[in-house]
Amino acid sequence: MDPSKVKIPPMKDLNIENITENVIAINSLCEDARMRYILERLVTHLHDFARETRLSTNEWMAGLLFLTEVGKNCSDVRQEFILLSDVLGLSLLVDSIDHPKPPGSTEGTVLGPFHTHEAEEISAGQSMSSDPKGEPLLVVCTLKDTEGRPIEGAKIDIWETDSSGKYDVQYAERDGPDGRCVMRSDKEGVFWFKAITPVPYPIPHDGPVGEVKEGFDHLITALYLRGDPYETSDAVFGVKNSLVVDIGKAGPEYAQKYGVPEDHALLTYDFVLVPDEETASLRAHNSKVALDKLGRKVKIVNGLPIPDLD
Amino acid sequence: MDPSKVKIPPMKDLNIENITENVIAINSLCEDARMRYILERLVTHLHDFARETRLSTNEWMAGLLFLTEVGKNCSDVRQEFILLSDVLGLSLLVDSIDHPKPPGSTEGTVLGPFHTHEAEEISAGQSMSSDPKGEPLLVVCTLKDTEGRPIEGAKIDIWETDSSGKYDVQYAERDGPDGRCVMRSDKEGVFWFKAITPVPYPIPHDGPVGEVKEGFDHLITALYLRGDPYETSDAVFGVKNSLVVDIGKAGPEYAQKYGVPEDHALLTYDFVLVPDEETASLRAHNSKVALDKLGRKVKIVNGLPIPDLD
Repeated sequence: MDPSKVKIPPMKDLNIENITENVIAINSLCEDARMRYILERLVTHLHDFARETRLSTNEWMAGLLFLTEVGKNCSDVRQEFILLSDVLGLSLLVDSIDHPKPPGSTEGTVLGPFHTHEAEEISAGQSMSSDPKGEPLLVVCTLKDTEGRPIEGAKIDIWETDSSGKYDVQYAERDGPDGRCVMRSDKEGVFWFKAITPVPYPIPHDGPVGEVKEGFDHLITALYLRGDPYETSDAVFGVKNSLVVDIGKAGPEYAQKYGVPEDHALLTYDFVLVPDEETASLRAHNSKVALDKLGRKVKIVNGLPIPDLD
Repeated sequence: MDPSKVKIPPMKDLNIENITENVIAINSLCEDARMRYILERLVTHLHDFARETRLSTNEWMAGLLFLTEVGKNCSDVRQEFILLSDVLGLSLLVDSIDHPKPPGSTEGTVLGPFHTHEAEEISAGQSMSSDPKGEPLLVVCTLKDTEGRPIEGAKIDIWETDSSGKYDVQYAERDGPDGRCVMRSDKEGVFWFKAITPVPYPIPHDGPVGEVKEGFDHLITALYLRGDPYETSDAVFGVKNSLVVDIGKAGPEYAQKYGVPEDHALLTYDFVLVPDEETASLRAHNSKVALDKLGRKVKIVNGLPIPDLD
């Protein structure tokens, strides 16, 4: 068989200078324009990284073995590559790109590696933590759209650490979900439940909340306690001023309405979701502006940029 | 506990524009200057990649799940991250950076994912393949230094595919190494053995050879057959003109000396190793020149560049 019959650009004697363009030439056989663009940028940055650091064979191998370990440590309830992406700041960056928030809406943060898909649905007022050592906390939240209208029936996924700062999945002897629940907002957009007061956590990530309602952009966010030692140094880069909260006391009104003592710890928060179309149009607009600024001529196809070669 | 007591640069409200400098600020707490430099370049390129592609959450997750699968598929005899690095051209690039070859020495190529550490040592003339369907091939090679002096007692690690183009580790029912051997060069620098004629292979990587001798730069290379359909399109980017060989006939001289029929297939090759010091000085020189060209002021410490901040 003749080499000229293989439908791949000819290449031989590749070196430090010409390897990148040749790998991109091979990848250019990929038919999907978006995938082609992603591969081109990926290979370019990967190679520039190696060239700028003059990466050694030992360092390269250490990196591959590290990635192998990360893969081996992933399980159904633990995604170590998400944690790696978190600590490299990539998760926050991708979330900022893909879920832009118009003014007045609740800011998002990173999913983190500790979400699971098995939390039980609870009714308003039930407890989502069985840790007897935790300080009981009443949580009362509302869910509204950007016009201030209540959003009813949204699925809310909530998880937090226990009183020692660990998520349930961090225990080897775990036999089911704890410190997790799924709820639905009522017709006033309210959801309320009993939890425990969050404690500082080595990779702090207190009280993440994910909210889904058809027609609205999926919100993943987290609330952070003011004065927490990690308030300004979250290892996964998720803290935003608008997400920092104080824990207060229930007081007479909440005590009566929600059936707790007046000095019971209370956390309240009002979440604001963004309609899908608004997010999509903001995302496309931001992409165009950012890539124009980088001098990249792109067009938006299926909401994502690809090079505009016309 | 007061946030100001945590020894981490304060950060909050991170966004697309400021996330990179903040992640680098956190990494700057790392004490090793080389590691700091690698992390800084890694985070910069990773973030620029996401910004330039406007990476979506779905694409990010697809990437993480892909890396997870790669990790899960690694085993003692199979390193899928090396294969991924190979097909992205990174392996060839790192090898070119770390193992520069002065004129007259044998060019290197990538290790590939199919090397194992369990091949048996054979004596001169023994066979390293038990595949009865393979066409027998006599291989006679020499190993010399850049001055033409024979190198005796070097450890040579050789592996090739079987007659169907597969490495032994690609069979689920494999019960031990085949198509692999370890040899030592004799006092004339010669090593010779019986193998089978290589066949084209989906990700072609025929006849890799690794050679180790204390005092010489570890050489990993491969020989490629001329006219192979993948001769100019090696998926792992390793083919170099100087590594393309023809298979000839033994002829009267080789037939008598090595005890084979005159029409027996023959492959010969003369390998030239480079002294460690020469490689080290060439590597440091190349790094300095390349990084000067990129406008990066560096100094070489332990043979590797770090930013020169003085």
